[in-house]
Amino acid sequence: MTLLSALTGDTEIEALLSDAAQLDAMLAFERALAEASAEAGLISDAAARSIARAIDAFAPDWPNLEAGMARDGVVVPALIRQLKAGVAEADRASLHKGATSQDVIDTALMVQLGKVFDVYEARLSGLLSTLDTLAARHGEASLMAHTRMQVALPTTWGAKLASWSEPLKRHLRSLSVMRRSLLVIQLGGPVGDRGSFDGHGDAIATGMARRLDLGLATPWQATRDPIVALGSLLAQISGSLGKIGMDIALLAQNEVAAVGLAGGGGSSAMAHKSNPVNAEVLVALARHNAGLSGTLNQALVHENERSGAAWTLEWLTLPPMLVATGASLRLAAALLDQLRLN
Amino acid sequence: MTLLSALTGDTEIEALLSDAAQLDAMLAFERALAEASAEAGLISDAAARSIARAIDAFAPDWPNLEAGMARDGVVVPALIRQLKAGVAEADRASLHKGATSQDVIDTALMVQLGKVFDVYEARLSGLLSTLDTLAARHGEASLMAHTRMQVALPTTWGAKLASWSEPLKRHLRSLSVMRRSLLVIQLGGPVGDRGSFDGHGDAIATGMARRLDLGLATPWQATRDPIVALGSLLAQISGSLGKIGMDIALLAQNEVAAVGLAGGGGSSAMAHKSNPVNAEVLVALARHNAGLSGTLNQALVHENERSGAAWTLEWLTLPPMLVATGASLRLAAALLDQLRLN
Amino acid sequence: MTLLSALTGDTEIEALLSDAAQLDAMLAFERALAEASAEAGLISDAAARSIARAIDAFAPDWPNLEAGMARDGVVVPALIRQLKAGVAEADRASLHKGATSQDVIDTALMVQLGKVFDVYEARLSGLLSTLDTLAARHGEASLMAHTRMQVALPTTWGAKLASWSEPLKRHLRSLSVMRRSLLVIQLGGPVGDRGSFDGHGDAIATGMARRLDLGLATPWQATRDPIVALGSLLAQISGSLGKIGMDIALLAQNEVAAVGLAGGGGSSAMAHKSNPVNAEVLVALARHNAGLSGTLNQALVHENERSGAAWTLEWLTLPPMLVATGASLRLAAALLDQLRLN
Amino acid sequence: MTLLSALTGDTEIEALLSDAAQLDAMLAFERALAEASAEAGLISDAAARSIARAIDAFAPDWPNLEAGMARDGVVVPALIRQLKAGVAEADRASLHKGATSQDVIDTALMVQLGKVFDVYEARLSGLLSTLDTLAARHGEASLMAHTRMQVALPTTWGAKLASWSEPLKRHLRSLSVMRRSLLVIQLGGPVGDRGSFDGHGDAIATGMARRLDLGLATPWQATRDPIVALGSLLAQISGSLGKIGMDIALLAQNEVAAVGLAGGGGSSAMAHKSNPVNAEVLVALARHNAGLSGTLNQALVHENERSGAAWTLEWLTLPPMLVATGASLRLAAALLDQLRLN
Repeated sequence: MTLLSALTGDTEIEALLSDAAQLDAMLAFERALAEASAEAGLISDAAARSIARAIDAFAPDWPNLEAGMARDGVVVPALIRQLKAGVAEADRASLHKGATSQDVIDTALMVQLGKVFDVYEARLSGLLSTLDTLAARHGEASLMAHTRMQVALPTTWGAKLASWSEPLKRHLRSLSVMRRSLLVIQLGGPVGDRGSFDGHGDAIATGMARRLDLGLATPWQATRDPIVALGSLLAQISGSLGKIGMDIALLAQNEVAAVGLAGGGGSSAMAHKSNPVNAEVLVALARHNAGLSGTLNQALVHENERSGAAWTLEWLTLPPMLVATGASLRLAAALLDQLRLN
Repeated sequence: MTLLSALTGDTEIEALLSDAAQLDAMLAFERALAEASAEAGLISDAAARSIARAIDAFAPDWPNLEAGMARDGVVVPALIRQLKAGVAEADRASLHKGATSQDVIDTALMVQLGKVFDVYEARLSGLLSTLDTLAARHGEASLMAHTRMQVALPTTWGAKLASWSEPLKRHLRSLSVMRRSLLVIQLGGPVGDRGSFDGHGDAIATGMARRLDLGLATPWQATRDPIVALGSLLAQISGSLGKIGMDIALLAQNEVAAVGLAGGGGSSAMAHKSNPVNAEVLVALARHNAGLSGTLNQALVHENERSGAAWTLEWLTLPPMLVATGASLRLAAALLDQLRLN
Repeated sequence: MTLLSALTGDTEIEALLSDAAQLDAMLAFERALAEASAEAGLISDAAARSIARAIDAFAPDWPNLEAGMARDGVVVPALIRQLKAGVAEADRASLHKGATSQDVIDTALMVQLGKVFDVYEARLSGLLSTLDTLAARHGEASLMAHTRMQVALPTTWGAKLASWSEPLKRHLRSLSVMRRSLLVIQLGGPVGDRGSFDGHGDAIATGMARRLDLGLATPWQATRDPIVALGSLLAQISGSLGKIGMDIALLAQNEVAAVGLAGGGGSSAMAHKSNPVNAEVLVALARHNAGLSGTLNQALVHENERSGAAWTLEWLTLPPMLVATGASLRLAAALLDQLRLN
Repeated sequence: MTLLSALTGDTEIEALLSDAAQLDAMLAFERALAEASAEAGLISDAAARSIARAIDAFAPDWPNLEAGMARDGVVVPALIRQLKAGVAEADRASLHKGATSQDVIDTALMVQLGKVFDVYEARLSGLLSTLDTLAARHGEASLMAHTRMQVALPTTWGAKLASWSEPLKRHLRSLSVMRRSLLVIQLGGPVGDRGSFDGHGDAIATGMARRLDLGLATPWQATRDPIVALGSLLAQISGSLGKIGMDIALLAQNEVAAVGLAGGGGSSAMAHKSNPVNAEVLVALARHNAGLSGTLNQALVHENERSGAAWTLEWLTLPPMLVATGASLRLAAALLDQLRLN
């Protein structure tokens, strides 16, 4: 649905979460696994080189990957079969050796999230810079405060703008903290205890983390609280921006007219309307992400060593949250650009 | 993300909700509006014919529609501008006369939902037929019942199968009821009181409903409980199917082995695994729809005569619910095909 | 927390859901079971009379019931032990014969819900009557409509009041429908197939339903979609009232002043404030119920013949929803009493 | 409902959140405000002493507080009126000077949360100690791992126990971090900009924070992301414990029998049953808290300088979450005590 996406989507984040981007990250996983496994002595250097060449030359058969996804509930078995076809027969057993599907998918997600965080940080910094500029220009200006939907007492635009920027500063710091706490390698093998790596599991994980620019961690395939914490941060970002949207929609009411919006949305029936579309969509995205974050929490009840149900639930909820958060940041920037203080 | 869609999506429902399908339904709205308005005397017959010809010949400029969506928060203003270009100048004022964007979007959704309901009903009937067949064959067979995750006492497969089919029968009846209570025309004009139709509003609504095969209703643009009721029914359908998935996943445990699954999902690390993928995904879809239904409820707090925020929140939640429900029905059929009673 | 309850609670509904009210309903279940079982020939008339006398004379040991609840996850085993002590030894095996805890709890809930529905229906009717009176007095009066948080075009108070009352009429009808579809007997025995009643299960269920003024139904202990449908209706009621609250809060803004509120809430710091407290709480209750309804949906994934986890989740979510809905109806009446159209 | 509370409640946490506990914390706020205001020169020392004496002697009129709560939407105006009656007339204007209701309520909550955190930390430490003991005794023992609801490969109890304890360690660290980031003073005055303290606002906030053992912060009355972050942590704690409950319920199935549970719950119909009640309730509490956390997120859309609707929504959601988290910790300890590894 491209039309809806034009309003509530985010092409940049969508690209970072696309099938193609995920494939790239999965291939990076397999390459790093092979190299680190050779370094640790689990496989030969020649096998690692053979695998790297196969990855370089890999051309995916997408319909086959889709069929594998539908059959196995995860794309990795089909992907490994396709990849193996490009590896010399003697080296095939070295590909994906000791690893399991979840290692690939979870680690690939971390690689992708690193890039998503780059976008978020740049946009949050941009918003903060815009708010700083507004505060420098209008911080002393008077503004009627409203509490409980009623006129309260005069305050300043500086206080209002601070209430918009302070949460964003906290979110920027949280993203930075989460780069260390969340963006870590997942390597556990079939049952998550690294027992499949002949004693080399920790060394291989270390080698892979270095190559993939991720942090180190013990296997976390069944303990998903860091994923849930990310979901909460996403809801906090879009929620803080939803608050800005709600404030502006209230302040831009014709009867209040504390702000104006350049280039508001048009109506098919009322030519005089100038609708605060970006402000409204910020509220909608905030509420949507709020709900999705609650659903993502349900995935914490992760059965035993791997839950297909809980894991699939993450896939259903986290990507739309990442896109909604990106869209919120995009729309908040557009909205502040439209803003005219009266 | 085609890969994920191969597992958790539904191509048939996605097609019925596509931009192209929505455009068709919006054009059907405008054609029916013109015809009914001519019938009621609000516009001339010639104008109605001119509009119908423009609709027949219409070729959308999609990038322009997307830009309009992003600017106006709804695609209709841009669509009407494009359509008008194909109408003789004298008749342009007759196009979309008296109507507002929400009339188009909400009514188009109802037209689309009618087709989605067709698919759901056919699939629910198919599932019930499969369950009937199983009951006829195995209804007398003994099955150990489990309560509170512990062995209870023997029951019959007949009782188990009845617990799976009875909710589905209720859902089928609810869909039938909802065809009358939900699939109705929305025609209110700019502020939802039909004041823009020069006293012909009720007659035009009647004429449109007949042409679009929808029920009659007073304007409901700001009272969205029927939409929320649909969301609940979707969550009930996927939830009832999620219960079947959970039962089968529990019964198919190796240690329980009350059922087997032909063609279970494979693992990239453990060749012996036969994973109950379809059962797990049914649980995941049930939990996802459950959460989305809760978020959709938030859209009931719909400000005044039209809330951009609440309405956009419906767009963010209802379509994924419709797809997830379709996918649940699709996967439940596949799962029952795999099922082998031991 | 009595303080919060003074704002967001409802003493009448809370009383209908109290431990004492539940005990009464559970005792009514056991009495009806004994009488219907005697009628069907499963137990003797003398045993039924002995049980009825024990119930008449029963004085609960509440701490022991609480301890049983904590140990067994359900109060019924402890209750039956206490009740048995008052029954002649020869008749003890006739008490609760064939039934299981869930039969008692679920049926008792239905008995309690019947009284809750009485309250809801009376309050909904009262609101509709108030809205009718307002429409009769002010229906022709002009009101500026607002769409997308902007001034739109003039409409009438009649149209606004209709948008408030129409959903309530639908909810009143839904309650009436739900009396038949939801308020039914649950009688299944240990594994839900009535196998424990020696072939008399259907007759006993019929006799009990008549005595308890409930509808008939096959056992539904593991198929909870009617409970979820109730949750949706509760969210719809509080959501429709939340929309009224939001409209009034917006219309009562000082800058808009389309309505006034007699006796608004005071502030500890700003003597001039008159806060639309009831309107705000209606919005808060709507959002709370919306979320709880989503969580209740999760209970549809009910494992096998009885899920302690899913069932307990219903207990955590449904009672606060019932109270919140009652509070919404109570506060909506108070708010309409405060309302002064300008 | 004391019965349900015996199963899913927590008397210790409930006491820390009681009306009496909140009153104590609100009085501590007013005392600290008076002392710090005297220190800063906003009020006289004599007035501060007069206020302290009134607080020492204060006996609340609870029905009047409840009535005030219902009228004003917040208890503080009524409380201040009652308190003022005990202060010498000349000093009355010094009571609550410059502050607003939200300063009192939010800061009191922080004081209460400090004590709740003490309980959580002690219980989390206790659980970790129990898990350490189990690992020391049984860490080398073999356990069949299960992935996607199917037998996978043998692993060790050490790996399983590590997957249970690692999230709890993270939660303990998060509580510690949150003591600094969340447990801070709220002091903003009527519109949240400290403009009501005649330039002494920052000094008074500092003095109060020291007295109340809270951190310093700029006013945050309308930026609630730290509250939402707490909600996420609560959902993470109960979710991680829900995962332990689910694992144990699965491992304790009769057909799996990897663990036993001493003193399981009894059934009213099946004497042989030993139900994993504590495990099931952990799952239910996890799902309930997951949902409430999602609803709490909705409170981020906090209108302007103070939103009655969003703030009330926090009151409806956060206290039950705090209790559910306490109950989860309590039940997890009980469950691990019952656990017998086979």
